Amino acid sequence: MASSSLWQRFQRYFLEYRELGFSLDISRMKFPEDMFDEMRPQIEQAFAAMRQLEAGAIANPTEKRMVGHYWLRNPELAPTPAIRAEIEDTILSDALGSAQNRMNIFFFDNTDPEGFDRVFDRIGDGLPRTLVVVVSKSGGTKETRNGMVEAEAKFAAKGLQFARHAVAVTGVGSELDKDAEANAWLARFPMPDWIGGRTSVMSAVGLLPMALEGFDIDGFLAGAAAMDERTRIPEVAQNAAMLLALMWYYAGNGKGERDMVVLPYKDRLALFTKYLQQLVMESLGKEKDLAGDIVHQGIAVYGNKGSTDQHSYVQQLRDGVLNFFVTFVEVSNDRRGAPFEVEDGITSGDYLHCFLRGTRGALYEKGRESITMSIPQVNAFYVGALIALYERAVGFYGSLVDVNAYDQPGVEAGKKAASKLLELQKQVREKLSDDGKTAEEIARLVDADPEDVFHLLRHLASNDPSIKVTPGEETVDDRFSLAEKS
Amino acid sequence: MASSSLWQRFQRYFLEYRELGFSLDISRMKFPEDMFDEMRPQIEQAFAAMRQLEAGAIANPTEKRMVGHYWLRNPELAPTPAIRAEIEDTILSDALGSAQNRMNIFFFDNTDPEGFDRVFDRIGDGLPRTLVVVVSKSGGTKETRNGMVEAEAKFAAKGLQFARHAVAVTGVGSELDKDAEANAWLARFPMPDWIGGRTSVMSAVGLLPMALEGFDIDGFLAGAAAMDERTRIPEVAQNAAMLLALMWYYAGNGKGERDMVVLPYKDRLALFTKYLQQLVMESLGKEKDLAGDIVHQGIAVYGNKGSTDQHSYVQQLRDGVLNFFVTFVEVSNDRRGAPFEVEDGITSGDYLHCFLRGTRGALYEKGRESITMSIPQVNAFYVGALIALYERAVGFYGSLVDVNAYDQPGVEAGKKAASKLLELQKQVREKLSDDGKTAEEIARLVDADPEDVFHLLRHLASNDPSIKVTPGEETVDDRFSLAEKS
Repeated sequence: MASSSLWQRFQRYFLEYRELGFSLDISRMKFPEDMFDEMRPQIEQAFAAMRQLEAGAIANPTEKRMVGHYWLRNPELAPTPAIRAEIEDTILSDALGSAQNRMNIFFFDNTDPEGFDRVFDRIGDGLPRTLVVVVSKSGGTKETRNGMVEAEAKFAAKGLQFARHAVAVTGVGSELDKDAEANAWLARFPMPDWIGGRTSVMSAVGLLPMALEGFDIDGFLAGAAAMDERTRIPEVAQNAAMLLALMWYYAGNGKGERDMVVLPYKDRLALFTKYLQQLVMESLGKEKDLAGDIVHQGIAVYGNKGSTDQHSYVQQLRDGVLNFFVTFVEVSNDRRGAPFEVEDGITSGDYLHCFLRGTRGALYEKGRESITMSIPQVNAFYVGALIALYERAVGFYGSLVDVNAYDQPGVEAGKKAASKLLELQKQVREKLSDDGKTAEEIARLVDADPEDVFHLLRHLASNDPSIKVTPGEETVDDRFSLAEKS
Repeated sequence: MASSSLWQRFQRYFLEYRELGFSLDISRMKFPEDMFDEMRPQIEQAFAAMRQLEAGAIANPTEKRMVGHYWLRNPELAPTPAIRAEIEDTILSDALGSAQNRMNIFFFDNTDPEGFDRVFDRIGDGLPRTLVVVVSKSGGTKETRNGMVEAEAKFAAKGLQFARHAVAVTGVGSELDKDAEANAWLARFPMPDWIGGRTSVMSAVGLLPMALEGFDIDGFLAGAAAMDERTRIPEVAQNAAMLLALMWYYAGNGKGERDMVVLPYKDRLALFTKYLQQLVMESLGKEKDLAGDIVHQGIAVYGNKGSTDQHSYVQQLRDGVLNFFVTFVEVSNDRRGAPFEVEDGITSGDYLHCFLRGTRGALYEKGRESITMSIPQVNAFYVGALIALYERAVGFYGSLVDVNAYDQPGVEAGKKAASKLLELQKQVREKLSDDGKTAEEIARLVDADPEDVFHLLRHLASNDPSIKVTPGEETVDDRFSLAEKS
């Protein structure tokens, strides 16, 4: 396309929310001019589904739940006075933290023992001054439960009373909620049934840690509300969330045929892609559509940050396999302090901006399409706005391809398989004796898959010095026994 | 496949380097039994190419360079005594740092002004005790140059002499090398011509920062050397690097048709995927093959860590679009200290292990294929071994699909486009006056693309208070002028 017609296309497809300071440019996606007209029925359907969702419909049919994250930033929209009160009563005082009085944060987000140890090492002598926020809707998530149990033990070992340091964010009446109440934890915050994990960041789940760290949670909610307000309007050309969803649809042919590569040109947004990975992939990666037909939907998401990435995998984006589209995120204000020129008339920020524009151009030149969005700065308000934008775009896209964007049935399979293996591990452990046995022999004794038994034995032997391994000719012939007691 | 035949297949395709403690399981990739025979000619070719590369051939033909990263961990292999001496003379004393005497590390890896400010904020009053390591082969990379200039200014502002804090790792005779010599920096370390950026981690580029942080660089090199030794042997079934390359070939049909999702089940390996993203994508993402034909090769890489990710995008992996294969990385030793049971007979590490195995099974059940590799622990030795494994697998795969895995021609395009825009920015800036002008008007004055000019003007106006914007009816009609001097 010649430069002059690109400029025409840019003027046509550059959407700016002036007062918000947000813009979206879809001109470098080569969708056909009549696409929005052609898709009118699905688009109307998606707008209608979102209206119903926001009005309190059971928008998550498999789990028979309402989907209420939009109410969190505008409680007046809540479908019942009770829900409105539930949101408004979960007041988080700004006194919890401020920019002058921030708490440091550490995460237990896994069941990796070494990961726990690493956090305890970092906290060091600070344990008596440490608050533990345990977040689990059901209270049954094992990573959270294990982290809590490890933390309890650590506090106890230091002679500290865990309950005097612990706060729960959980579903009312969950096991965790009951435990926290029974043991008189410092506080309990509710996690309503109508909030899913991946859209819980504007409930107490996200707001409590943010407040403790001194972030501006009011600004965060206000940014989301402002974006919600604009993307609620059922007019395609003015609706950034619908335009995003349509671009995803166009790029991947409505089947996720192209990966979404997200490149924010800003250090402070380096983790944004990781957040989107969960939001987009967990929401859209579904086996069945709402009619129950097998569709295997989803969009793969990856990325990190520019211009750093230009020196790594952007090589493949420009020259390699064309299985993706790019989303650039620009932050127009370079720094809070005074500009500093690294050469005559040019700042580091000018470089950053021109690297973004240059890469966008270099990709386009090779037929690689991209979306570009822009915000003035990275702060709580704009992070809130971006999250709201993507939450709604994901909801719209779910409607366009007719999947439930709010459940996660596939996540259960791995958990169930793990539970069975943990049961099997106990049985395997009991069959160990002074006599060395192979995995195959033990598998026969407990009537289990020899490969499962083999891996369980190896893992046990790696961590329990009382288990002895006598090497066989091949590794699979290794014999496992209990070491003789000395 | 029934469980018993899976066990057969496992026994056949489970490779263990017993003394090294490393294993690779490719049994859950459903490649045909005769694949290795069918591919014999390409495999032999790949082994031969690697032998030549290690012997000092010009293995990077576009840049007419040798490719010598394997010599770094076994200098005896260097093709000339001069190169051997070059490696051995770059001695990095362990006195630089130790586990008891670690330096903290901060990175400038971008040209984001706010990113620089954030690092300076973290360093705070520590600047007088800060050493700056400037790493740039040519000295011309703008991100590095800009970071260096910003750091120089910060040191100067605090009355500190930058040269007394600065060390260069750069090509002998580069601009940076000359500057560092002229200004009497503390030290200069060479970055040889035959080392590429993405395989430089075992040269002074990686070893110097590692030593300063107190990591075991001898162990790091030894781990790589040990893996090199085993993967140098031209026998497919015993060569983990060749098996990996063949699995990538099988998964993506030799055309990168499937993404590589890497899931280490260990917090301390969470960044490993990011490293692989650069190594694999920059090396293999190529427009042309070695014969000059257009092929658009590459393999997209993403991932983070388990079991955390099971609660996010693994939903899509199990249920969604089947455009990937998985690589699980297991670490068999759970923690350095004593085991701790979170429930009767079960540790957090048992959970982690069973989540890995359970997810692998749940994916396989749905036709999702995976590779599993295992190391005993995460330390310098095993990180070195993993890096060596992937470096060689990438080299082999490059041969299998006949691309130059050691150049990066596409990276230049974005940089060149950026340089042009920076030049244009200066011209645009000069055309601003008291009279408001639109982007289109200024574009005509400087004979440039109006869209480029529009973005440059907006970025300038966002950062320079002396530029005034008068809103037009549409954003593209905004008028830009110099604010009246007060």
